[in-house]
Amino acid sequence: MKFATIRVDGGTRAVLVDGDELVDLGFGDLGQALRAPGGLAGAVQTNSADAKRWRTGELGDTAYAPVVPNPGKIVCVGLNYANHIREMGRELPEHPTLFGKYPEALIGADDPLVLPPESTDVDWEAELAVVIGSPVRRAGENEAAEAIAGFAVLNDVTMRDWQYRTPQWLQGKTFEATTPFGPWLVTPDELDGGVRPRLELTGLVDGEVVQKADTSDLVFDPVALVSYVSTILTLNPGDVIATGTPGGVGHARKPARYLTPGSLLTTRITGLGESTVRVLGLEPHGSGSGA
Amino acid sequence: MKFATIRVDGGTRAVLVDGDELVDLGFGDLGQALRAPGGLAGAVQTNSADAKRWRTGELGDTAYAPVVPNPGKIVCVGLNYANHIREMGRELPEHPTLFGKYPEALIGADDPLVLPPESTDVDWEAELAVVIGSPVRRAGENEAAEAIAGFAVLNDVTMRDWQYRTPQWLQGKTFEATTPFGPWLVTPDELDGGVRPRLELTGLVDGEVVQKADTSDLVFDPVALVSYVSTILTLNPGDVIATGTPGGVGHARKPARYLTPGSLLTTRITGLGESTVRVLGLEPHGSGSGA
Repeated sequence: MKFATIRVDGGTRAVLVDGDELVDLGFGDLGQALRAPGGLAGAVQTNSADAKRWRTGELGDTAYAPVVPNPGKIVCVGLNYANHIREMGRELPEHPTLFGKYPEALIGADDPLVLPPESTDVDWEAELAVVIGSPVRRAGENEAAEAIAGFAVLNDVTMRDWQYRTPQWLQGKTFEATTPFGPWLVTPDELDGGVRPRLELTGLVDGEVVQKADTSDLVFDPVALVSYVSTILTLNPGDVIATGTPGGVGHARKPARYLTPGSLLTTRITGLGESTVRVLGLEPHGSGSGA
Repeated sequence: MKFATIRVDGGTRAVLVDGDELVDLGFGDLGQALRAPGGLAGAVQTNSADAKRWRTGELGDTAYAPVVPNPGKIVCVGLNYANHIREMGRELPEHPTLFGKYPEALIGADDPLVLPPESTDVDWEAELAVVIGSPVRRAGENEAAEAIAGFAVLNDVTMRDWQYRTPQWLQGKTFEATTPFGPWLVTPDELDGGVRPRLELTGLVDGEVVQKADTSDLVFDPVALVSYVSTILTLNPGDVIATGTPGGVGHARKPARYLTPGSLLTTRITGLGESTVRVLGLEPHGSGSGA
């Protein structure tokens, strides 16, 4: 099944995506649906036949809110694609590298991304995101697998100048309204590979492929990550793990390449849909503007 | 004024601390009171004369919940005491080092701290915490100062073995139920130095002073930190900034010294009260136990 949080009637609603119909699930967003008793499956089962429906075509260009707008936590993973690590001449890591991101960083899949004037080095990181469906602590493999509600597209857009101001990356990773997340949450049963999906991940800038990988190349797969993080603390419904990005980021290019006003940033994962974000500069009076 | 979140009647309540009386503010916890229109000041003003009151003596040993039990975000600062940085032979940093912690890490000021069996190197970090009272983004000095609701004691207890598994510290900083936070939130007007408090911070293990500093020795003071973090994203009411720890942590001792079952960890800041946490081992069957 495929779910989304859409913007309608001056607010947001959690919906089941049924072809080109969007069926109201009775919750304000997918986070609320995930946290309710019964979770997403319960929301679908108890959904009434006369639930409100919208057609995708009748909604605006920014119909998709962040697929979970306000996760209790977002845990990000660094250095997690084996091919990329090997091509950098490094050893595969023994433990996942984890860092944080706050919910204020999230935007909808097709929202504009307004460049913060404080950064000159805004870079892309196409990623597969895991969304948690049930609370887990110290989960073994089976429990971790069952705790995965589904997957979504995320781009861990990064201010490289801020990331490297100090040895801790957080401040370059959590600028407000710079992380596209969505459009959809897709359940594992719909995906090749299930909870360890084998999907093609592609990042594009102005239509040019800049990142390409198979999500089966993750050193720590989604199940391993859920198990690892849950050793540290409880993962709760709606929590998100961003599983890391493959090679091809702008910072590693010679010369380095960054997003500029007018750039089009596309993040695509087969089966999970596509985020298409127009990058805007901040005008002196504060209104966003294209190049 | 002095506030707390206390555990009563099977739940929690936000209270004004009035001598040895605790006056119900009409909210389930201080986070809710901070986020309500009017904030803490509004909660006090609209408080009815017949509000429920408790005496500190009549509550149990673990009366204090984390002073804000569920902050929207917790931002931690590293390497922020000038004397300690200089004694390590380092230059004062140009930018604050920031890393994350999730709310699941928090415990009440006098709760037991159960050592996670996955770590052998559990260390102390006595800190001054800033609690945000109003939303701010890109705040200048005055706006940042006004956004500070108050201060509290926090101990950023750290699993050193996990902190240094990878270059990113997060995983050693956010183990569930290991960060004492409280007992009280004290407003700046009650404190020597106001929003840039000049307070004595002391960490003790088994009654022995292991950390001692003056909070005026912070390289980035609370106002500077609120301003800096708000450049990156909006700080919201109830959000917390943990301002960093001075020298004297167990990891830097020769030989290194860590918390063990039976240790008593005390964190004290003049004017902000004291957290006293008994450290327990995890028994094979999962119930906490003293040494």
